Amino acid sequence: MAVQIRKLDSTDADFQQRLSSLLAFEAATDDAIESAVAQILADVKARGDAAVLEYTNRFDRIPGGAASMAAFDIGQEELDAALAALPQAQRAALQAASDRIRAFHERQKQELKGFTYTEPDGTVLGQRVTPLDRVGIYVPGGKAAYPSSVLMNAIPAQVAGVKEIVMVVPTPDGIKNRMVLAAAAIAGVTRVITIGGAQAVGALAYGTETIAPVDKIVGPGNAYVAAAKRRVFGLVGIDMIAGPSEILVLCDGTTDPDWVAMDLFSQAEHDELAQAILLCPNEEYIARVEASIHKLLPGMPRKETIEASLSGRGALVKVRDMIEACEIANAIAAEHLEISAENPQQWADKIRHAGAMFLGRFSSESLGDYCCGPNHVLPTSRTARFSSPLGVYDFQKRSSVIQVSEAGAQTLGRVAAELAYGEGLQAHARSAELRLTKS
Amino acid sequence: MAVQIRKLDSTDADFQQRLSSLLAFEAATDDAIESAVAQILADVKARGDAAVLEYTNRFDRIPGGAASMAAFDIGQEELDAALAALPQAQRAALQAASDRIRAFHERQKQELKGFTYTEPDGTVLGQRVTPLDRVGIYVPGGKAAYPSSVLMNAIPAQVAGVKEIVMVVPTPDGIKNRMVLAAAAIAGVTRVITIGGAQAVGALAYGTETIAPVDKIVGPGNAYVAAAKRRVFGLVGIDMIAGPSEILVLCDGTTDPDWVAMDLFSQAEHDELAQAILLCPNEEYIARVEASIHKLLPGMPRKETIEASLSGRGALVKVRDMIEACEIANAIAAEHLEISAENPQQWADKIRHAGAMFLGRFSSESLGDYCCGPNHVLPTSRTARFSSPLGVYDFQKRSSVIQVSEAGAQTLGRVAAELAYGEGLQAHARSAELRLTKS
Repeated sequence: MAVQIRKLDSTDADFQQRLSSLLAFEAATDDAIESAVAQILADVKARGDAAVLEYTNRFDRIPGGAASMAAFDIGQEELDAALAALPQAQRAALQAASDRIRAFHERQKQELKGFTYTEPDGTVLGQRVTPLDRVGIYVPGGKAAYPSSVLMNAIPAQVAGVKEIVMVVPTPDGIKNRMVLAAAAIAGVTRVITIGGAQAVGALAYGTETIAPVDKIVGPGNAYVAAAKRRVFGLVGIDMIAGPSEILVLCDGTTDPDWVAMDLFSQAEHDELAQAILLCPNEEYIARVEASIHKLLPGMPRKETIEASLSGRGALVKVRDMIEACEIANAIAAEHLEISAENPQQWADKIRHAGAMFLGRFSSESLGDYCCGPNHVLPTSRTARFSSPLGVYDFQKRSSVIQVSEAGAQTLGRVAAELAYGEGLQAHARSAELRLTKS
Repeated sequence: MAVQIRKLDSTDADFQQRLSSLLAFEAATDDAIESAVAQILADVKARGDAAVLEYTNRFDRIPGGAASMAAFDIGQEELDAALAALPQAQRAALQAASDRIRAFHERQKQELKGFTYTEPDGTVLGQRVTPLDRVGIYVPGGKAAYPSSVLMNAIPAQVAGVKEIVMVVPTPDGIKNRMVLAAAAIAGVTRVITIGGAQAVGALAYGTETIAPVDKIVGPGNAYVAAAKRRVFGLVGIDMIAGPSEILVLCDGTTDPDWVAMDLFSQAEHDELAQAILLCPNEEYIARVEASIHKLLPGMPRKETIEASLSGRGALVKVRDMIEACEIANAIAAEHLEISAENPQQWADKIRHAGAMFLGRFSSESLGDYCCGPNHVLPTSRTARFSSPLGVYDFQKRSSVIQVSEAGAQTLGRVAAELAYGEGLQAHARSAELRLTKS
């Protein structure tokens, strides 16, 4: 076991180039997956339940084969039973995480209430905020089934006021994940259906005889699920298609190097493509973190994944100072940014782009992943430059409200008509002019 | 000239089916366009300015052919001169519209300020709101060049605090649209480049030697532009790909039928695929609107387009009552919804889905298109079920802020570790446990 984690120095002539190639990630599009998904979606659209039933029996190897879609519905009693059957410590932890996630998202909801104002001539303008009617939450099955993802996707929808939250989760070989069902019970999911893959995405988007079409589909999935979500986008809303997870640690050299090493591991253990990078101005400290990496790695159950991730996409970067570290952090726009330093706020103030910022050495990313309260669904692959964590706002939409008074129509009508004639849209102009009082 | 506008009655047995087929719209994907766009984007990515220059000279038939990209930059002086050269009434109207749009979007900005709160153990949680660094605004050239679109796309970005707003606008045959340049001068665009098509989208997304890559691209365009935006989505943010424009008028029969007819025209004149629908409980009134349509159509300069739109996709729908009209409106989730009625608020309260609501008979859509203040870039094709008007929020993003205190790490660490072990992510668990004080 020998991790070969690359070391970069910001003063090297080729630093920018090496950093860019390190960050470069392009999701490969697989033509075989694309055409399989297109075919499955078309089939679900055309044949509804019959197609979903066939694909589910085949792809998920349902023992004996389900005879109808009703076999895939999990009732509230079974969800409650799954929760009751958890070991007490696990159930308490799930409940505590749920409570904190709910509290944070309630704050988000409070921020966005809409507004209305009346102008001197009586014209009223405003913005209304309303929840989506019905959303679908995709939860992966099998080994990568994460109950924390159920909480993070369902609770914001529930807080937003979404009436119907339909969760789909495949059960390969018919095996159900008890902790995932327990999380659904806690998170306020209104219906659970044990289907998955592109066929589940199609069922949610188009609707079938037994599944009403949803307005938005969120949640992580494999390449088939991601391809299906891209294809139904527009008909329904979707969340971002996530790339590999990333952590960027800015450290001033005052944190226990074991802590930093383990924080890098906690990202690297997700996936061989996950990216863990340390920026630090102190060369001697970087060497200590490296020593901690070598010391701690053999004890990690997922050491092969961690080693592959750190060797392939990780880096320990010596920077000139913490100010430069912040500049590089803005260019990277990381999904998770830890500022493990004394007085972290001074550096946080310089950060413009990050999915979530973890300030101070006690704020490990893992606490945020599970139970601090803010969402763990975050923008990856530099998309934090223009997008946000999953939130209550993803399950709400705005409508403009315009109520023009008779007096308002006189002034606004003249402006609108002038511009409409300028654009050659005469019906627009006439529509405004009809409201002008004859004088 | 004889408009054959279909008439539906909600009590007919096949009403739902006829309404659904009327609303159905699927944007055709054209393989020839897709492959042309893929090739142009790849070329711009590989060759930068040289490729953009070649495509622009060729596709836009630039007289003489530009020798370098510098020829496509329009300086601030030329923008200011375009504004100064407008007829006084037009300049005043553009300025008045700009002022009102800015005022409304400033209200939007006030709503989203972020928040932070401290828990009893000293843990701080929050959400930061920051503007995007750099955005690109696509403005179509030629006949469909709309200065109002420049205002509606650029002002929210400027209000959000975006430092660099780069507008691209093609100039077929080298012809510049003075009103569009004047609008850019008013709206706070920081750079104008006279390029367009997929090559302009590629230049904005990838960057070239003379154009820095942007974080998001917004604005309408033809099928090539839409295809290019879809392809660069993920690398940069994009706004929704708009479908044909729509108006839905709910009328209780108390508005001058000429006004309603002209409001339907104002949508229909955009495009043969535009959709204009009236819902009304009063059969006699519907006949009066139909008479107004026949009376007014011959006088409209764009009568061919209006006739094609109303005949192909329009409808006059008799409903049982205004309550049913509201239910149908929620199913349609129209881009523009006019409630042309006495006491419109009672009906507005029943509406869950609409891009913009125009309440009362003086609130014609055309006023909102130009100068009420709210944005005219609105969700089409039923996407108002899950998306919002373009706004300041489209040029901002949120970052979560998590600062866990030492005391907080003790309680949160135990919860996180329990759940992480449950998910088989041991490095996550260890990262939390390292922060536990030995006891």
